[in-house]
Amino acid sequence: MSLTFSKLGARQVESDIARLMTMALERPELLSLAAGFTDTETLPLEEIAEAAAALGQEGDRTILQYGSNQGRLSLRQRLTARLAQQDGVAMSRSAYRLQRSFISNGSQQALYLAAQTLCDPGDIVLVEQPTYFVFLEMLRGLGVKAVSMPMLASGDVDAAGLDSQLRDYEKSGQLDRVKAVYLVSYYANPSGHSLSRSCKKAVVDLLGGYDGRIALFEDAAYRELYYERPFEAESCVALSQEGQRVPVFYTSTLTKPYASGLKVGYGYCTHDDWLGRMLSVKGQQDFGTPHFNQALFDRVLETGAFDRHLERIRKSYFQKMDTLDQALRREPDLADWQWERPLGGLYLWVQAPGGASTDFESIFYANAIEAGVMYVPGHLCHAERAARDQARLSFGVLDPPDLQEAAKRFARAAKHGA
Amino acid sequence: MSLTFSKLGARQVESDIARLMTMALERPELLSLAAGFTDTETLPLEEIAEAAAALGQEGDRTILQYGSNQGRLSLRQRLTARLAQQDGVAMSRSAYRLQRSFISNGSQQALYLAAQTLCDPGDIVLVEQPTYFVFLEMLRGLGVKAVSMPMLASGDVDAAGLDSQLRDYEKSGQLDRVKAVYLVSYYANPSGHSLSRSCKKAVVDLLGGYDGRIALFEDAAYRELYYERPFEAESCVALSQEGQRVPVFYTSTLTKPYASGLKVGYGYCTHDDWLGRMLSVKGQQDFGTPHFNQALFDRVLETGAFDRHLERIRKSYFQKMDTLDQALRREPDLADWQWERPLGGLYLWVQAPGGASTDFESIFYANAIEAGVMYVPGHLCHAERAARDQARLSFGVLDPPDLQEAAKRFARAAKHGA
Repeated sequence: MSLTFSKLGARQVESDIARLMTMALERPELLSLAAGFTDTETLPLEEIAEAAAALGQEGDRTILQYGSNQGRLSLRQRLTARLAQQDGVAMSRSAYRLQRSFISNGSQQALYLAAQTLCDPGDIVLVEQPTYFVFLEMLRGLGVKAVSMPMLASGDVDAAGLDSQLRDYEKSGQLDRVKAVYLVSYYANPSGHSLSRSCKKAVVDLLGGYDGRIALFEDAAYRELYYERPFEAESCVALSQEGQRVPVFYTSTLTKPYASGLKVGYGYCTHDDWLGRMLSVKGQQDFGTPHFNQALFDRVLETGAFDRHLERIRKSYFQKMDTLDQALRREPDLADWQWERPLGGLYLWVQAPGGASTDFESIFYANAIEAGVMYVPGHLCHAERAARDQARLSFGVLDPPDLQEAAKRFARAAKHGA
Repeated sequence: MSLTFSKLGARQVESDIARLMTMALERPELLSLAAGFTDTETLPLEEIAEAAAALGQEGDRTILQYGSNQGRLSLRQRLTARLAQQDGVAMSRSAYRLQRSFISNGSQQALYLAAQTLCDPGDIVLVEQPTYFVFLEMLRGLGVKAVSMPMLASGDVDAAGLDSQLRDYEKSGQLDRVKAVYLVSYYANPSGHSLSRSCKKAVVDLLGGYDGRIALFEDAAYRELYYERPFEAESCVALSQEGQRVPVFYTSTLTKPYASGLKVGYGYCTHDDWLGRMLSVKGQQDFGTPHFNQALFDRVLETGAFDRHLERIRKSYFQKMDTLDQALRREPDLADWQWERPLGGLYLWVQAPGGASTDFESIFYANAIEAGVMYVPGHLCHAERAARDQARLSFGVLDPPDLQEAAKRFARAAKHGA
């Protein structure tokens, strides 16, 4: 007899990220198209040091005190106004309510709180194909089952297919296990796709017919990382304003586009009871996100340093995307591979020809490691791990010359067969 | 029909902290002996700004990148060495292993991870009388039952009584629900008591007889907040070194004594499987504590700014404790109240005469609010909420003149009867 562990809601799952990171550490000569990190060279170290100095001179010591569990009021005001402005909604009490926003330790904690408070082991969350693989790991850890929704060739959710899927759950008496639909809506990780307004509206309308029983998770982590102009679709918060009973949870982050080492995300929830539960559990987990980090963001949003930085890195990521895209297109051995140029984000999502496998056990993966390049095997991004002929290539970390070399290595792996 | 929520492990519980904070916001004229915050005036804002500037000049931008899930290696090295030094153990591979340490969002997240991975709803954790009331809230949120252990008049755990309690659980077939013993071991919140070496050793030895089935949580959040010299007892990590199969989880924090707005705590776990589960769930919750904050602590530990700050605030908190203690002792209306002068920490734990109640519904509580002073009712700090004649008075926040005034108000409430 020895220590026994929780059987519920706190499962140790094998981490694919950990596997990839271990490989990166053990083989430093590999060029990584796997890590979803941002560019280290452009991280705003001087701006953060300046902001910290300015906070020091202002002399408000309470920023080193506990903040509130829900998050710093002035920062939540800025973020609620920013969301309303992005959605093109005039700020009014009825549209976006300050009380419905909260600050989290990156958007990941917000997703965790939303899933933890809503789902028990055995419950079901419907996801896109492909979807964010870290969210799949999180659901596995909570004992929650992820099930893929049918998709259109455009990359949008097939709303009619989703309708049939939900009716099938109803017929088989399983509908009460379906707790939520999860959408990664802007320049998605991993597909780079943004969901069209009509797709989002169709999903909102469909869930509206279920009387508030099925929630919508919108993960907008990359929304601000567009290259040229913001994507035209509003958030599902905006699309569900008109009296529909769809509990919408929206999350995004200040740190993915700015500095992931500061870990400040935020959530917005249209369902007050659900929000109250998330805040209750957040209170138990950490009683608030670091106040100092929130004050730093208050400052860089106020001075405009945050937006100036975004302007710079949008150009930088466009150039890196373009470099990798062009380099891959120049390779004859990749002539039969297919992918689209994204309009934002950090990823190319590439499709191997003839259903060739790219998974950890595949010949192609071994060839890629042999050639000196890492990527994220696409099947990790599918709930059922069925599709094995895709790969996520991130251009966030490497500089343009390394991206060109990585493309050559990737092509070499393809040449040697899959 | 509407949204249904998790029945397990993510419960919304009424928060006593929230109740007290709401009262503080609504009645700003009240002097608060309730908030367990540190002194805002002594928060090291300039030191943090300086450290941020130095990090900016050093130019290592990776501190704004994601860190590792387990925590920054150099910081964990410092903290493992610091723990060994506090315990008086020469650093060696066999004593304190770097791999067993991790960084968390304050010690609260470390406690949450330890409880979440170990316990299912209905499981039991044994606690002191009194104990840390936020931990009790956390257990309630996880559906875990807290049960008090018998205590000695000294404030130590009654190890013989605990032995009987565990035998009773065994007889009634409930022993497999008892997952852990929770100890707040240095200058405890709320009692101010530090557990003697012999008490800790007796508990470790007793649990050693259960073949690793019952874990030990040691919460050492206030260990560095001694006034004159460190308390002599080693940690339970040190006391269980000698081949005993007791899974020990130890947690403390860098931010409670330094700057709570930075939220950096740490955990140390002697049981590798348990640790692996905590790290797995941490990976799902946030994938690592803010790297920048960890780098700031690396810096202030390296330069000695952290320890110089501790030297200053130890004196400051001693003076504040002494001010409140003396002011209360001068009040004739408190002649029959009893308390001990602590050797560290932020709290006086006072006992009303004649079993008079201090809870939220008591006449005494109403009198105190009327007189203009807040405190934490003692029954919140008992698992069964049985003892209603105690109160936690914090001297962390108020300055000495306000502490004197707060003592007068507290005495006025006592005069008007309880």
